[in-house]
Amino acid sequence: MPQNEQTTAFDTATAVRRTEGGGLGADLDPGWDVGGGILNGGYLLSVVGRAAVLESPHAHPVAMSASYLRAPAAGPVTLTVEPGPSGRTLAHSLITLADAGGPALTVQATTATLTSAPSDYGHPMPDVPPAEECFSIAEHRDLAPPGVQVPGLSLKVDSRIDIATAGWAFGQPSGEPVLRAWMRFADGREPDPLALLTFADALPPTSFAMGAMGWAPTVQLQVLVRALPAPGWCLVEARSSEISGGWIDEDYRIWDSTGRLVAQSRQLARAPR
Amino acid sequence: MPQNEQTTAFDTATAVRRTEGGGLGADLDPGWDVGGGILNGGYLLSVVGRAAVLESPHAHPVAMSASYLRAPAAGPVTLTVEPGPSGRTLAHSLITLADAGGPALTVQATTATLTSAPSDYGHPMPDVPPAEECFSIAEHRDLAPPGVQVPGLSLKVDSRIDIATAGWAFGQPSGEPVLRAWMRFADGREPDPLALLTFADALPPTSFAMGAMGWAPTVQLQVLVRALPAPGWCLVEARSSEISGGWIDEDYRIWDSTGRLVAQSRQLARAPR
Repeated sequence: MPQNEQTTAFDTATAVRRTEGGGLGADLDPGWDVGGGILNGGYLLSVVGRAAVLESPHAHPVAMSASYLRAPAAGPVTLTVEPGPSGRTLAHSLITLADAGGPALTVQATTATLTSAPSDYGHPMPDVPPAEECFSIAEHRDLAPPGVQVPGLSLKVDSRIDIATAGWAFGQPSGEPVLRAWMRFADGREPDPLALLTFADALPPTSFAMGAMGWAPTVQLQVLVRALPAPGWCLVEARSSEISGGWIDEDYRIWDSTGRLVAQSRQLARAPR
Repeated sequence: MPQNEQTTAFDTATAVRRTEGGGLGADLDPGWDVGGGILNGGYLLSVVGRAAVLESPHAHPVAMSASYLRAPAAGPVTLTVEPGPSGRTLAHSLITLADAGGPALTVQATTATLTSAPSDYGHPMPDVPPAEECFSIAEHRDLAPPGVQVPGLSLKVDSRIDIATAGWAFGQPSGEPVLRAWMRFADGREPDPLALLTFADALPPTSFAMGAMGWAPTVQLQVLVRALPAPGWCLVEARSSEISGGWIDEDYRIWDSTGRLVAQSRQLARAPR
Protein backbone atom coordinates (compact mmCIF):
# COMPACT_ATOMS: atom_id res chain seq x y z
CA MET A 1 0.00 0.00 0.00
CA PRO A 2 1.45 3.38 -0.93
CA GLN A 3 2.39 5.55 2.03
CA ASN A 4 1.01 9.02 2.45
CA GLU A 5 3.80 11.14 0.94
CA GLN A 6 3.53 13.74 3.66
CA THR A 7 4.23 11.31 6.45
CA THR A 8 7.55 9.84 5.35
CA ALA A 9 10.84 11.20 6.65
CA PHE A 10 12.19 11.62 3.11
CA ASP A 11 9.19 13.49 1.73
CA THR A 12 9.05 15.78 4.73
CA ALA A 13 12.80 16.50 4.64
CA THR A 14 12.81 17.24 0.90
CA ALA A 15 9.54 19.21 0.74
CA VAL A 16 9.70 22.30 -1.48
CA ARG A 17 7.22 25.13 -1.01
CA ARG A 18 6.31 28.16 -3.07
CA THR A 19 7.26 31.34 -1.26
CA GLU A 20 5.24 34.53 -1.14
CA GLY A 21 7.44 36.13 -3.78
CA GLY A 22 6.67 33.25 -6.17
CA GLY A 23 10.04 31.57 -5.74
CA LEU A 24 10.75 28.20 -4.16
CA GLY A 25 12.05 27.39 -0.71
CA ALA A 26 12.81 24.41 1.50
CA ASP A 27 13.92 23.64 5.04
CA LEU A 28 17.01 21.45 5.08
CA ASP A 29 16.67 18.79 7.76
CA PRO A 30 19.72 18.42 10.05
CA GLY A 31 18.98 14.69 10.38
CA TRP A 32 20.34 13.88 6.91
CA ASP A 33 23.98 14.54 7.78
CA VAL A 34 27.11 12.55 7.05
CA GLY A 35 28.74 13.53 10.35
CA GLY A 36 29.84 16.85 11.78
CA GLY A 37 26.67 18.63 10.74
CA ILE A 38 27.50 18.26 7.03
CA LEU A 39 24.38 17.40 5.02
CA ASN A 40 24.58 14.51 2.55
CA GLY A 41 25.07 15.64 -1.04
CA GLY A 42 22.51 13.17 -2.37
CA TYR A 43 19.91 14.46 0.06
CA LEU A 44 20.56 18.02 -1.16
CA LEU A 45 20.19 16.82 -4.75
CA SER A 46 16.78 15.29 -3.93
CA VAL A 47 15.61 18.69 -2.66
CA VAL A 48 16.83 20.28 -5.89
CA GLY A 49 15.23 17.48 -7.93
CA ARG A 50 11.89 18.25 -6.34
CA ALA A 51 12.25 21.89 -7.37
CA ALA A 52 13.22 20.81 -10.89
CA VAL A 53 10.11 18.71 -11.49
CA LEU A 54 7.87 21.31 -9.84
CA GLU A 55 8.89 23.80 -12.54
CA SER A 56 8.95 21.31 -15.42
CA PRO A 57 6.26 19.84 -17.68
CA HIS A 58 7.99 16.48 -17.03
CA ALA A 59 7.61 14.36 -13.93
CA HIS A 60 11.10 12.98 -13.28
CA PRO A 61 14.72 14.08 -12.94
CA VAL A 62 16.68 12.01 -15.48
CA ALA A 63 20.05 13.78 -15.42
CA MET A 64 21.27 16.03 -12.60
CA SER A 65 24.77 17.52 -12.60
CA ALA A 66 25.67 19.35 -9.41
CA SER A 67 28.61 21.48 -8.34
CA TYR A 68 29.00 21.55 -4.56
CA LEU A 69 30.22 25.07 -3.88
CA ARG A 70 30.03 24.96 -0.08
CA ALA A 71 28.22 22.95 2.58
CA PRO A 72 24.87 24.63 3.32
CA ALA A 73 23.58 24.86 6.89
CA ALA A 74 20.44 23.02 7.94
CA GLY A 75 17.43 25.33 7.93
CA PRO A 76 15.77 27.53 5.32
CA VAL A 77 17.14 27.70 1.76
CA THR A 78 15.95 29.25 -1.47
CA LEU A 79 15.79 27.36 -4.76
CA THR A 80 16.11 29.48 -7.89
CA VAL A 81 15.07 27.72 -11.08
CA GLU A 82 16.15 29.20 -14.42
CA PRO A 83 14.21 27.37 -17.12
CA GLY A 84 16.05 26.27 -20.26
CA PRO A 85 14.76 24.74 -23.47
CA SER A 86 11.74 22.51 -22.94
CA GLY A 87 10.11 20.06 -25.34
CA ARG A 88 7.95 16.99 -25.62
CA THR A 89 10.79 14.61 -24.66
CA LEU A 90 12.76 16.56 -22.08
CA ALA A 91 13.32 19.94 -20.42
CA HIS A 92 16.46 21.64 -19.14
CA SER A 93 16.86 23.97 -16.18
CA LEU A 94 19.56 25.44 -13.99
CA ILE A 95 18.87 25.47 -10.26
CA THR A 96 20.71 27.24 -7.46
CA LEU A 97 20.26 26.23 -3.83
CA ALA A 98 21.32 29.03 -1.49
CA ASP A 99 21.27 29.56 2.25
CA ALA A 100 21.98 32.74 4.22
CA GLY A 101 25.66 32.38 3.30
CA GLY A 102 24.95 32.44 -0.44
CA PRO A 103 24.87 29.79 -3.20
CA ALA A 104 25.80 26.29 -1.97
CA LEU A 105 24.84 24.12 -4.91
CA THR A 106 24.29 24.75 -8.62
CA VAL A 107 22.59 22.01 -10.59
CA GLN A 108 21.92 21.44 -14.25
CA ALA A 109 18.71 19.45 -14.37
CA THR A 110 17.21 17.49 -17.22
CA THR A 111 13.67 16.28 -16.60
CA ALA A 112 11.67 13.79 -18.64
CA THR A 113 9.01 11.15 -18.12
CA LEU A 114 10.35 7.77 -17.09
CA THR A 115 8.61 4.40 -17.31
CA SER A 116 9.31 0.94 -16.00
CA ALA A 117 9.20 -0.52 -19.54
CA PRO A 118 11.68 -3.36 -20.07
CA SER A 119 15.30 -2.67 -21.03
CA ASP A 120 16.74 -3.20 -24.48
CA TYR A 121 20.03 -3.81 -22.66
CA GLY A 122 20.81 -3.71 -18.95
CA HIS A 123 24.02 -4.22 -17.01
CA PRO A 124 23.36 -7.25 -14.80
CA MET A 125 23.04 -6.89 -11.03
CA PRO A 126 25.97 -8.42 -9.14
CA ASP A 127 25.37 -11.40 -6.92
CA VAL A 128 25.03 -10.22 -3.30
CA PRO A 129 23.74 -12.12 -0.26
CA PRO A 130 20.24 -11.16 0.93
CA ALA A 131 19.90 -8.03 3.07
CA GLU A 132 19.46 -10.07 6.28
CA GLU A 133 22.96 -11.51 5.79
CA CYS A 134 24.59 -8.14 5.18
CA PHE A 135 26.15 -5.61 7.56
CA SER A 136 23.88 -2.88 8.92
CA ILE A 137 25.73 0.33 9.77
CA ALA A 138 22.81 1.55 11.89
CA GLU A 139 22.80 -1.65 13.94
CA HIS A 140 26.56 -1.47 14.56
CA ARG A 141 27.08 2.15 15.47
CA ASP A 142 29.41 1.12 18.28
CA LEU A 143 31.78 -0.40 15.73
CA ALA A 144 32.55 2.98 14.16
CA PRO A 145 36.32 3.46 13.95
CA PRO A 146 37.85 6.16 16.15
CA GLY A 147 37.19 9.59 14.71
CA VAL A 148 34.37 8.40 12.47
CA GLN A 149 30.98 9.69 13.49
CA VAL A 150 28.09 7.52 12.38
CA PRO A 151 25.99 9.84 10.22
CA GLY A 152 22.34 10.69 10.75
CA LEU A 153 21.87 9.57 7.15
CA SER A 154 22.40 5.96 8.26
CA LEU A 155 19.27 6.19 10.44
CA LYS A 156 17.19 7.50 7.52
CA VAL A 157 18.55 5.21 4.82
CA ASP A 158 18.77 1.59 5.88
CA SER A 159 22.00 0.30 4.29
CA ARG A 160 23.01 -3.36 4.47
CA ILE A 161 26.56 -3.67 3.27
CA ASP A 162 27.72 -6.81 1.46
CA ILE A 163 30.12 -8.43 3.94
CA ALA A 164 32.58 -8.95 1.06
CA THR A 165 32.97 -5.14 0.92
CA ALA A 166 32.62 -4.38 4.66
CA GLY A 167 36.09 -5.38 5.92
CA TRP A 168 36.90 -1.74 6.75
CA ALA A 169 34.21 -1.83 9.46
CA PHE A 170 36.26 -4.53 11.21
CA GLY A 171 39.67 -2.91 10.72
CA GLN A 172 40.39 -5.01 7.63
CA PRO A 173 40.00 -2.75 4.58
CA SER A 174 39.96 -4.80 1.37
CA GLY A 175 42.31 -2.52 -0.59
CA GLU A 176 39.80 -2.50 -3.44
CA PRO A 177 37.70 0.70 -3.58
CA VAL A 178 34.33 -1.02 -3.98
CA LEU A 179 31.26 -0.98 -1.72
CA ARG A 180 27.92 -2.70 -2.28
CA ALA A 181 24.80 -2.44 -0.18
CA TRP A 182 21.09 -3.10 -0.19
CA MET A 183 19.36 0.19 0.49
CA ARG A 184 15.88 1.40 1.38
CA PHE A 185 14.36 4.12 3.54
CA ALA A 186 14.22 3.10 7.20
CA ASP A 187 10.51 3.99 7.41
CA GLY A 188 9.59 1.78 4.46
CA ARG A 189 8.96 4.65 2.01
CA GLU A 190 9.35 3.04 -1.42
CA PRO A 191 12.03 4.21 -3.88
CA ASP A 192 11.24 6.60 -6.72
CA PRO A 193 13.39 8.82 -8.96
CA LEU A 194 13.78 11.50 -6.25
CA ALA A 195 14.87 8.86 -3.73
CA LEU A 196 17.44 7.50 -6.18
CA LEU A 197 19.11 10.93 -6.17
CA THR A 198 19.79 10.39 -2.45
CA PHE A 199 20.77 6.71 -2.82
CA ALA A 200 23.29 7.74 -5.51
CA ASP A 201 25.50 9.34 -2.84
CA ALA A 202 24.46 7.44 0.30
CA LEU A 203 27.16 4.78 0.70
CA PRO A 204 30.18 5.44 2.91
CA PRO A 205 33.17 6.73 0.90
CA THR A 206 34.83 4.00 -1.19
CA SER A 207 38.09 5.22 0.35
CA PHE A 208 36.98 3.46 3.57
CA ALA A 209 37.76 0.23 1.70
CA MET A 210 41.30 1.59 1.21
CA GLY A 211 41.70 2.22 4.93
CA ALA A 212 41.24 6.01 4.68
CA MET A 213 38.40 6.65 7.11
CA GLY A 214 37.88 10.40 6.68
CA TRP A 215 35.17 12.37 4.96
CA ALA A 216 35.40 12.70 1.17
CA PRO A 217 33.67 15.99 0.28
CA THR A 218 31.90 15.91 -3.09
CA VAL A 219 33.07 18.45 -5.65
CA GLN A 220 30.88 17.51 -8.61
CA LEU A 221 28.20 14.82 -8.86
CA GLN A 222 26.19 13.64 -11.83
CA VAL A 223 23.21 11.34 -11.33
CA LEU A 224 21.29 9.66 -14.15
CA VAL A 225 17.92 8.11 -13.35
CA ARG A 226 17.09 5.47 -15.93
CA ALA A 227 13.76 3.91 -14.94
CA LEU A 228 11.04 3.92 -12.30
CA PRO A 229 12.27 1.59 -9.56
CA ALA A 230 10.10 -1.30 -8.35
CA PRO A 231 9.17 -1.34 -4.63
CA GLY A 232 11.59 -2.96 -2.18
CA TRP A 233 15.34 -2.94 -1.63
CA CYS A 234 17.67 -1.32 -4.16
CA LEU A 235 21.16 -2.69 -4.64
CA VAL A 236 23.74 0.10 -4.71
CA GLU A 237 27.33 -0.44 -5.87
CA ALA A 238 30.07 2.21 -5.68
CA ARG A 239 33.48 1.84 -7.28
CA SER A 240 36.48 4.14 -7.70
CA SER A 241 38.68 4.04 -10.80
CA GLU A 242 41.47 6.42 -9.82
CA ILE A 243 42.74 7.78 -6.52
CA SER A 244 45.61 10.27 -6.77
CA GLY A 245 46.72 13.77 -6.02
CA GLY A 246 44.11 14.18 -3.31
CA TRP A 247 41.21 13.33 -5.66
CA ILE A 248 38.90 10.33 -5.82
CA ASP A 249 36.02 9.39 -8.11
CA GLU A 250 32.99 7.36 -7.08
CA ASP A 251 30.94 5.57 -9.67
CA TYR A 252 27.53 4.18 -8.66
CA ARG A 253 25.19 1.73 -10.27
CA ILE A 254 21.78 1.13 -8.65
CA TRP A 255 19.43 -1.77 -9.41
CA ASP A 256 15.88 -2.17 -8.13
CA SER A 257 14.45 -5.27 -6.45
CA THR A 258 13.71 -6.83 -9.85
CA GLY A 259 17.39 -6.54 -10.87
CA ARG A 260 16.76 -3.70 -13.28
CA LEU A 261 19.38 -0.94 -13.51
CA VAL A 262 17.54 2.23 -12.44
CA ALA A 263 20.25 4.82 -11.74
CA GLN A 264 23.93 5.66 -12.15
CA SER A 265 26.08 8.36 -10.66
CA ARG A 266 29.62 9.61 -10.81
CA GLN A 267 31.29 12.09 -8.55
CA LEU A 268 34.65 13.72 -8.14
CA ALA A 269 35.52 14.21 -4.49
CA ARG A 270 38.48 15.23 -2.40
CA ALA A 271 40.17 12.09 -1.09
CA PRO A 272 40.59 11.72 2.68
CA ARG A 273 44.18 11.36 3.81
CA MET B 1 59.54 18.00 -29.26
CA PRO B 2 56.46 20.02 -28.30
CA GLN B 3 54.51 21.38 -31.22
CA ASN B 4 53.78 25.04 -31.56
CA GLU B 5 50.29 25.25 -30.06
CA GLN B 6 49.11 27.64 -32.71
CA THR B 7 49.84 25.28 -35.56
CA THR B 8 47.85 22.22 -34.54
CA ALA B 9 44.34 21.62 -35.81
CA PHE B 10 42.99 21.15 -32.28
CA ASP B 11 44.52 24.31 -30.83
CA THR B 12 43.36 26.41 -33.78
CA ALA B 13 39.84 24.96 -33.71
CA THR B 14 39.45 25.49 -29.94
CA ALA B 15 41.11 28.92 -29.70
CA VAL B 16 39.34 31.35 -27.40
CA ARG B 17 39.88 35.10 -27.78
CA ARG B 18 39.03 38.08 -25.63
CA THR B 19 36.50 40.28 -27.38
CA GLU B 20 36.46 44.07 -27.41
CA GLY B 21 33.77 44.14 -24.72
CA GLY B 22 36.00 42.09 -22.42
CA GLY B 23 34.07 38.84 -22.92
CA LEU B 24 35.30 35.68 -24.60
CA GLY B 25 34.62 34.38 -28.06
CA ALA B 26 35.57 31.51 -30.35
CA ASP B 27 35.02 30.36 -33.92
CA LEU B 28 33.60 26.85 -34.04
CA ASP B 29 35.32 24.88 -36.79
CA PRO B 30 32.93 22.98 -39.10
CA GLY B 31 35.57 20.25 -39.52
CA TRP B 32 34.88 18.73 -36.07
CA ASP B 33 31.48 17.35 -36.95
CA VAL B 34 29.91 13.96 -36.30
CA GLY B 35 27.99 14.00 -39.57
CA GLY B 36 25.25 16.20 -40.95
CA GLY B 37 26.97 19.39 -39.85
CA ILE B 38 26.50 18.55 -36.15
CA LEU B 39 29.61 19.47 -34.13
CA ASN B 40 31.02 16.88 -31.73
CA GLY B 41 30.02 17.46 -28.12
CA GLY B 42 33.52 16.74 -26.84
CA TYR B 43 34.99 19.30 -29.22
CA LEU B 44 32.53 21.90 -27.93
CA LEU B 45 33.51 20.99 -24.36
CA SER B 46 37.19 21.57 -25.18
CA VAL B 47 36.34 25.09 -26.36
CA VAL B 48 34.47 25.70 -23.11
CA GLY B 49 37.35 24.17 -21.13
CA ARG B 50 39.74 26.66 -22.67
CA ALA B 51 37.48 29.50 -21.56
CA ALA B 52 37.26 27.97 -18.07
CA VAL B 53 41.03 27.88 -17.50
CA LEU B 54 41.49 31.31 -19.07
CA GLU B 55 39.30 32.80 -16.32
CA SER B 56 40.63 30.59 -13.50
CA PRO B 57 43.71 30.74 -11.26
CA HIS B 58 44.06 27.00 -12.00
CA ALA B 59 45.49 25.50 -15.15
CA HIS B 60 43.30 22.48 -15.86
CA PRO B 61 39.66 21.45 -16.22
CA VAL B 62 39.14 18.58 -13.74
CA ALA B 63 35.35 18.26 -13.77
CA MET B 64 33.09 19.55 -16.52
CA SER B 65 29.34 18.91 -16.53
CA ALA B 66 27.57 20.03 -19.69
CA SER B 67 23.94 20.27 -20.71
CA TYR B 68 23.54 20.22 -24.48
CA LEU B 69 20.60 22.53 -25.09
CA ARG B 70 20.79 22.66 -28.88
CA ALA B 71 23.39 22.00 -31.57
CA PRO B 72 25.30 25.23 -32.26
CA ALA B 73 26.22 26.20 -35.80
CA ALA B 74 29.86 26.39 -36.88
CA GLY B 75 31.15 29.95 -36.78
CA PRO B 76 31.36 32.64 -34.11
CA VAL B 77 30.14 31.95 -30.56
CA THR B 78 30.33 33.80 -27.28
CA LEU B 79 31.52 32.23 -24.04
CA THR B 80 30.11 33.76 -20.87
CA VAL B 81 31.97 32.76 -17.71
CA GLU B 82 30.29 33.34 -14.33
CA PRO B 83 32.94 32.78 -11.69
CA GLY B 84 32.01 30.81 -8.58
CA PRO B 85 33.94 30.12 -5.40
CA SER B 86 37.70 29.91 -5.97
CA GLY B 87 40.40 28.67 -3.62
CA ARG B 88 43.87 27.23 -3.41
CA THR B 89 42.77 23.73 -4.45
CA LEU B 90 40.03 24.36 -6.98
CA ALA B 91 37.74 26.95 -8.55
CA HIS B 92 34.15 26.70 -9.82
CA SER B 93 32.54 28.53 -12.73
CA LEU B 94 29.45 28.36 -14.90
CA ILE B 95 29.98 28.84 -18.62
CA THR B 96 27.46 29.40 -21.39
CA LEU B 97 28.34 28.89 -25.03
CA ALA B 98 25.93 30.74 -27.31
CA ASP B 99 25.65 31.30 -31.05
CA ALA B 100 23.34 33.64 -32.93
CA GLY B 101 20.45 31.33 -32.06
CA GLY B 102 21.03 31.65 -28.31
CA PRO B 103 22.55 29.41 -25.62
CA ALA B 104 23.65 26.01 -26.93
CA LEU B 105 25.66 24.60 -24.05
CA THR B 106 25.81 25.35 -20.31
CA VAL B 107 28.74 23.91 -18.41
CA GLN B 108 29.64 23.70 -14.75
CA ALA B 109 33.42 23.76 -14.68
CA THR B 110 35.75 22.86 -11.85
CA THR B 111 39.37 23.78 -12.48
CA ALA B 112 42.43 22.72 -10.48
CA THR B 113 46.08 21.95 -11.05
CA LEU B 114 46.78 18.41 -12.17
CA THR B 115 50.05 16.51 -12.03
CA SER B 116 51.35 13.24 -13.43
CA ALA B 117 52.25 12.00 -9.93
CA PRO B 118 51.70 8.26 -9.48
CA SER B 119 48.29 6.86 -8.53
CA ASP B 120 47.38 5.54 -5.11
CA TYR B 121 44.94 3.29 -6.97
CA GLY B 122 44.20 3.03 -10.68
CA HIS B 123 41.75 0.92 -12.66
CA PRO B 124 43.94 -1.20 -14.93
CA MET B 125 43.99 -0.62 -18.68
CA PRO B 126 42.33 -3.45 -20.64
CA ASP B 127 44.45 -5.58 -22.93
CA VAL B 128 44.06 -4.32 -26.52
CA PRO B 129 46.16 -5.14 -29.61
CA PRO B 130 48.57 -2.41 -30.73
CA ALA B 131 47.15 0.46 -32.79
CA GLU B 132 48.58 -0.94 -36.04
CA GLU B 133 46.44 -4.05 -35.61
CA CYS B 134 43.24 -2.12 -34.93
CA PHE B 135 40.56 -0.79 -37.25
CA SER B 136 40.95 2.77 -38.53
CA ILE B 137 37.67 4.50 -39.32
CA ALA B 138 39.45 7.15 -41.38
CA GLU B 139 41.16 4.53 -43.53
CA HIS B 140 37.91 2.67 -44.17
CA ARG B 141 35.50 5.45 -44.99
CA ASP B 142 34.07 3.41 -47.85
CA LEU B 143 32.93 0.75 -45.35
CA ALA B 144 30.47 3.14 -43.70
CA PRO B 145 27.04 1.49 -43.50
CA PRO B 146 24.26 2.98 -45.63
CA GLY B 147 22.98 6.20 -44.10
CA VAL B 148 26.03 6.68 -41.88
CA GLN B 149 28.16 9.63 -42.86
CA VAL B 150 31.79 9.35 -41.77
CA PRO B 151 32.31 12.37 -39.53
CA GLY B 152 34.91 15.08 -40.01
CA LEU B 153 35.93 14.29 -36.45
CA SER B 154 37.43 11.00 -37.62
CA LEU B 155 39.92 12.93 -39.77
CA LYS B 156 40.99 15.09 -36.82
CA VAL B 157 41.11 12.37 -34.19
CA ASP B 158 42.87 9.22 -35.35
CA SER B 159 40.86 6.36 -33.81
CA ARG B 160 41.98 2.76 -34.10
CA ILE B 161 39.17 0.52 -32.93
CA ASP B 162 39.92 -2.78 -31.22
CA ILE B 163 38.75 -5.39 -33.74
CA ALA B 164 36.99 -7.21 -30.90
CA THR B 165 34.60 -4.24 -30.67
CA ALA B 166 34.46 -3.31 -34.38
CA GLY B 167 32.06 -5.99 -35.68
CA TRP B 168 29.42 -3.36 -36.43
CA ALA B 169 31.70 -1.91 -39.14
CA PHE B 170 31.41 -5.23 -40.96
CA GLY B 171 27.68 -5.75 -40.46
CA GLN B 172 28.24 -7.98 -37.42
CA PRO B 173 27.37 -5.95 -34.31
CA SER B 174 28.53 -7.73 -31.17
CA GLY B 175 25.35 -7.12 -29.17
CA GLU B 176 27.46 -5.83 -26.29
CA PRO B 177 27.49 -2.00 -26.04
CA VAL B 178 31.26 -1.63 -25.67
CA LEU B 179 33.82 0.11 -27.90
CA ARG B 180 37.56 0.46 -27.36
CA ALA B 181 40.04 2.43 -29.44
CA TRP B 182 43.50 3.90 -29.41
CA MET B 183 43.17 7.61 -30.00
CA ARG B 184 45.44 10.53 -30.83
CA PHE B 185 45.22 13.68 -32.92
CA ALA B 186 45.88 12.99 -36.60
CA ASP B 187 48.51 15.76 -36.76
CA GLY B 188 50.51 14.34 -33.86
CA ARG B 189 49.49 17.01 -31.34
CA GLU B 190 50.06 15.36 -27.95
CA PRO B 191 47.19 14.84 -25.47
CA ASP B 192 46.58 17.20 -22.57
CA PRO B 193 43.58 17.85 -20.30
CA LEU B 194 41.80 19.96 -22.94
CA ALA B 195 42.30 17.22 -25.53
CA LEU B 196 40.89 14.62 -23.13
CA LEU B 197 37.61 16.59 -23.08
CA THR B 198 37.32 15.86 -26.80
CA PHE B 199 38.48 12.24 -26.53
CA ALA B 200 35.83 11.67 -23.84
CA ASP B 201 33.09 11.88 -26.49
CA ALA B 202 34.96 10.92 -29.67
CA LEU B 203 34.12 7.24 -30.15
CA PRO B 204 31.22 6.22 -32.36
CA PRO B 205 28.01 5.63 -30.35
CA THR B 206 28.11 2.39 -28.34
CA SER B 207 24.70 1.69 -29.88
CA PHE B 208 26.56 0.89 -33.13
CA ALA B 209 27.66 -2.30 -31.35
CA MET B 210 23.95 -3.09 -30.86
CA GLY B 211 23.25 -2.67 -34.56
CA ALA B 212 21.58 0.74 -34.22
CA MET B 213 23.61 2.89 -36.61
CA GLY B 214 22.02 6.32 -36.06
CA TRP B 215 23.24 9.41 -34.30
CA ALA B 216 22.92 9.46 -30.47
CA PRO B 217 22.58 13.14 -29.50
CA THR B 218 24.14 13.94 -26.13
CA VAL B 219 21.79 15.39 -23.52
CA GLN B 220 24.18 15.70 -20.56
CA LEU B 221 27.89 14.88 -20.37
CA GLN B 222 30.24 14.91 -17.40
CA VAL B 223 33.99 14.59 -17.95
CA LEU B 224 36.53 14.15 -15.15
CA VAL B 225 40.21 14.71 -15.96
CA ARG B 226 42.34 12.86 -13.44
CA ALA B 227 45.98 13.37 -14.43
CA LEU B 228 48.24 14.92 -17.06
CA PRO B 229 48.45 12.36 -19.87
CA ALA B 230 51.81 11.14 -21.14
CA PRO B 231 52.60 11.69 -24.84
CA GLY B 232 51.44 9.09 -27.34
CA TRP B 233 48.27 7.10 -27.94
CA CYS B 234 45.46 7.12 -25.38
CA LEU B 235 43.26 4.07 -24.95
CA VAL B 236 39.57 5.01 -24.84
CA GLU B 237 36.86 2.59 -23.72
CA ALA B 238 33.11 3.34 -23.87
CA ARG B 239 30.46 1.16 -22.31
CA SER B 240 26.70 1.45 -21.84
CA SER B 241 24.92 0.12 -18.76
CA GLU B 242 21.28 0.62 -19.72
CA ILE B 243 19.45 1.16 -22.98
CA SER B 244 15.69 1.68 -22.68
CA GLY B 245 12.85 4.05 -23.35
CA GLY B 246 14.81 5.86 -26.05
CA TRP B 247 17.73 6.67 -23.70
CA ILE B 248 21.29 5.39 -23.59
CA ASP B 249 24.24 6.11 -21.30
CA GLU B 250 27.88 6.07 -22.36
CA ASP B 251 30.59 5.60 -19.80
CA TYR B 252 34.21 6.30 -20.83
CA ARG B 253 37.52 5.47 -19.25
CA ILE B 254 40.69 6.86 -20.86
CA TRP B 255 44.23 5.66 -20.16
CA ASP B 256 47.43 7.28 -21.42
CA SER B 257 50.31 5.48 -23.17
CA THR B 258 51.79 4.48 -19.79
CA GLY B 259 48.55 2.71 -18.80
CA ARG B 260 47.54 5.38 -16.32
CA LEU B 261 43.85 6.29 -16.04
CA VAL B 262 43.69 9.97 -17.02
CA ALA B 263 40.00 10.70 -17.67
CA GLN B 264 36.46 9.41 -17.27
CA SER B 265 33.18 10.56 -18.71
CA ARG B 266 29.54 9.68 -18.55
CA GLN B 267 26.76 10.92 -20.76
CA LEU B 268 23.05 10.48 -21.15
CA ALA B 269 22.04 10.52 -24.80
CA ARG B 270 18.99 9.82 -26.88
CA ALA B 271 19.25 6.31 -28.28
CA PRO B 272 19.07 5.88 -32.04
CA ARG B 273 16.22 3.64 -33.23
